[in-house]
Amino acid sequence: MAKRITNRKDDYSQWYLDVVKEAKLADHSPVRGSMVIRPNGFALWENMKGALDQMFKDTGHENAYFPLFIPKSFLSKEAQHVEGFAKECAVVTHSRLKSVDGGVEVDPESKLEEELIVRPTSETIIWDSYRNWIQSYRDLPILINQWANVVRWEMRTRLFLRTMEFLWQEGHTAHSSEKEAVEETRRMLDVYKTFAQDFMAMPVKTGVKTASERFAGAVDTYCIEAMMQDGKALQAGTSHFLGQNFAKAFDVKFQDTDGEHKYVWATSWGVSTRLIGGLIMTHSDDQGLVLPPKLAPTQVVVVPIYRNDDQRTEVLDYANPLIKELKDKGVSVKLDDRENQQPGYKFAEHEAAGIPLRVAVGPRDVKNGNLELARRDTLDKNIISKDGAAEHISDLLETIQTDLFNAAQERTENVTRDVESYDHFKEQIEDGGFIYAHWDGTDETEAKIKEETKATIRLIPINGESEPGKCMVTGKESVQKVLFARSY
Amino acid sequence: MAKRITNRKDDYSQWYLDVVKEAKLADHSPVRGSMVIRPNGFALWENMKGALDQMFKDTGHENAYFPLFIPKSFLSKEAQHVEGFAKECAVVTHSRLKSVDGGVEVDPESKLEEELIVRPTSETIIWDSYRNWIQSYRDLPILINQWANVVRWEMRTRLFLRTMEFLWQEGHTAHSSEKEAVEETRRMLDVYKTFAQDFMAMPVKTGVKTASERFAGAVDTYCIEAMMQDGKALQAGTSHFLGQNFAKAFDVKFQDTDGEHKYVWATSWGVSTRLIGGLIMTHSDDQGLVLPPKLAPTQVVVVPIYRNDDQRTEVLDYANPLIKELKDKGVSVKLDDRENQQPGYKFAEHEAAGIPLRVAVGPRDVKNGNLELARRDTLDKNIISKDGAAEHISDLLETIQTDLFNAAQERTENVTRDVESYDHFKEQIEDGGFIYAHWDGTDETEAKIKEETKATIRLIPINGESEPGKCMVTGKESVQKVLFARSY
Ligand SMILES: [Zn+2]
Ligand SMILES: [Zn+2]
Repeated sequence: MAKRITNRKDDYSQWYLDVVKEAKLADHSPVRGSMVIRPNGFALWENMKGALDQMFKDTGHENAYFPLFIPKSFLSKEAQHVEGFAKECAVVTHSRLKSVDGGVEVDPESKLEEELIVRPTSETIIWDSYRNWIQSYRDLPILINQWANVVRWEMRTRLFLRTMEFLWQEGHTAHSSEKEAVEETRRMLDVYKTFAQDFMAMPVKTGVKTASERFAGAVDTYCIEAMMQDGKALQAGTSHFLGQNFAKAFDVKFQDTDGEHKYVWATSWGVSTRLIGGLIMTHSDDQGLVLPPKLAPTQVVVVPIYRNDDQRTEVLDYANPLIKELKDKGVSVKLDDRENQQPGYKFAEHEAAGIPLRVAVGPRDVKNGNLELARRDTLDKNIISKDGAAEHISDLLETIQTDLFNAAQERTENVTRDVESYDHFKEQIEDGGFIYAHWDGTDETEAKIKEETKATIRLIPINGESEPGKCMVTGKESVQKVLFARSY
Repeated sequence: MAKRITNRKDDYSQWYLDVVKEAKLADHSPVRGSMVIRPNGFALWENMKGALDQMFKDTGHENAYFPLFIPKSFLSKEAQHVEGFAKECAVVTHSRLKSVDGGVEVDPESKLEEELIVRPTSETIIWDSYRNWIQSYRDLPILINQWANVVRWEMRTRLFLRTMEFLWQEGHTAHSSEKEAVEETRRMLDVYKTFAQDFMAMPVKTGVKTASERFAGAVDTYCIEAMMQDGKALQAGTSHFLGQNFAKAFDVKFQDTDGEHKYVWATSWGVSTRLIGGLIMTHSDDQGLVLPPKLAPTQVVVVPIYRNDDQRTEVLDYANPLIKELKDKGVSVKLDDRENQQPGYKFAEHEAAGIPLRVAVGPRDVKNGNLELARRDTLDKNIISKDGAAEHISDLLETIQTDLFNAAQERTENVTRDVESYDHFKEQIEDGGFIYAHWDGTDETEAKIKEETKATIRLIPINGESEPGKCMVTGKESVQKVLFARSY
């Protein structure tokens, strides 16, 4: 099979698209900027969703579903929100088509009185409902999440990383106190960090965004940021403390224990199919996708090797008990016994698809009581004994999960450094990676750095040792270093 | 607590809305015809989804996700499809808003070259992808399902039963032969029947639609039809054999084993959140929702009864081991230990929410080693011994599931009858229910019956004893009786 995946060093962008294509994760769609998530990609998303959903439920959240369409007037109720979101979005203006000459056209008589916006995010429509659900402190907190599709009219799109329509979850909570809302915001940031690191094996930095990078309508935006192989950062999840902004915009008050009527405190938080892009760029290699075992839809694939029917029977009889044993251990295992493809073709396909472990079994293995085991992450091959193989494989999956995290962690730390002078910063940023540097806290300096270096402040660390210093650009006081990078 | 639910005999429509409201299943949304699915409603949908999804996977299907937006031109590629679907739908015409005087308006400069339709169903966008995925018989079958939201611009809407936006699954399969596609169509009809009867405890009739009731673009539409308490039928799921219609419209051919290039055969099948409406109208009563245990998010609620802290401790210590034992048996059980509500209030709330079993425990129960058990379906109360209670409760949940099905089955059969003359039919149809009668097979007669009686042919039975006779209206030959009803 010809090499179908561009090498990363030759063209990282093309490599990314090749990996997506060869792993059959997604396709471009005829609607510009939309994508088709293929079964391999969707099975991966289902696993991510399943793990996150359990974490949301374990922290007391329930799922619900709010409408796709938002009345245009809702978007302008929260002043900052409209600035950030009302701009590039899909607008529904008519409700009917009519047939003309074998085609269809929009029926001008079906023009809507008020246009509807396809949700770019759901704060407005949700807070409109919360007004009806909240009267007293007894109705609080409301801890709701929704899994949904959203649309933002992006100009430059890229499969998973930035698409016009994407799938995500958005949590929207309502609280009786500021303290509780801030705690919730940070709790969900922790959930995202745990998910990224423990399931995706993707190390992340956590912190708070600067005012200019904040979610439109938020008081504080917390985020997780991951470092991709090409030295660019990826914002992988955000958790917003919204203060009372949406409660005020939608007039949502509750009667507190003291009898007073007060505005409700809010949070919102989300991660999306963008995470799949982050996963790809964290672990994959020039052979294709590499998946962490905890999220891989198929963890182990078994390929029988034979030349005739007798051998086939012999090899399958040998492999089947192992497959059963693995299934009993909760390992997701697939037998690839397709008759119309050669083993070499299958190997390449499984490699491109990122299946963590491949087991090959031929007549010689049967005779010797062995198996051939191939790790997708290291591409190492080993002959192991069939005795205790299920146990060995199950342990090895855990090892791979840990190794992937450690490798990504090491790669990230290798490109994370402190820089003191702006000259040095400008030189260093060309190599990519994360840079900690002092900043004077002003929008102007932030904008100047962005313009001159294309680097943005990814986050202001929280809970870190905050060592004061001087801004690398202006020399003004700085409370602590902040984290810079070029980013997706 | 005042009676919040209208009696069925007084106003069935209002009863339905009251049940939805008091069970906190859904709310109306500010966008006409859209709804908010509240946590109780969504948890129910998640359980339905989980059971169906497993059945789809067990029959070899994978999930994927296709775009929300469909280019307008796609809808007119299949001639019948456009007639049925292109009419009432949400049309996206612009991609940007702009701020004006604190509000927003649609930016006329963002007008799209080609309008986009918010999917009313996804055959067209999916077959456009299938064209790229299918070259050879080796690529077939494709067995894909998607869980998605769809929009149809309905004029008269009703929570769950008919909403502008609804959630559903749509299966779309591609096959190399007509035989295989027809088998798939019928297999999925069986899956729907099994789900309706075994999980929803909702008996259904199965059959095929007449030409006039067929899905736009289908060769045959199979359906499951259920009988609601008010004597109206509900179409609860459909499975379509699409022939080669979409393959021809989107030019999807495969090279067969004989080397010839042939058009691909197709099916599609779907059920939606409408099922929740069917569930409500099958089992619920004047006290509110009644849920079958297999789908109830909470199967058992435990309410502790006490007058002081000592009693509280005593009662909870008594109840907690039972709760643990139930959880270990896989029963979904919740302890309602809210301090700010009285037991009577809780009882009414759990009744309205349809929780199948309620366990009440007070100091006297502790002393006597008892529990009070209340069944939601029959409203029977019983004192049982705590010894063996978990086993008893677990068995009782199965009994309730069976009893609900049997009761609905009996109710349905009681209103299902054969009628020979049209006069008798016109008289009988006023009482609602299913009526089997002979029909001459013409659109004209079907339309006449519908106009004169508001009854439609719900289905033509398949696999039944087909006894020939004379059409009740025209006296012409009829191969078999067909099933009539007034319907939702
Ligand atoms: Zn230097
Ligand atoms: Zn009569």
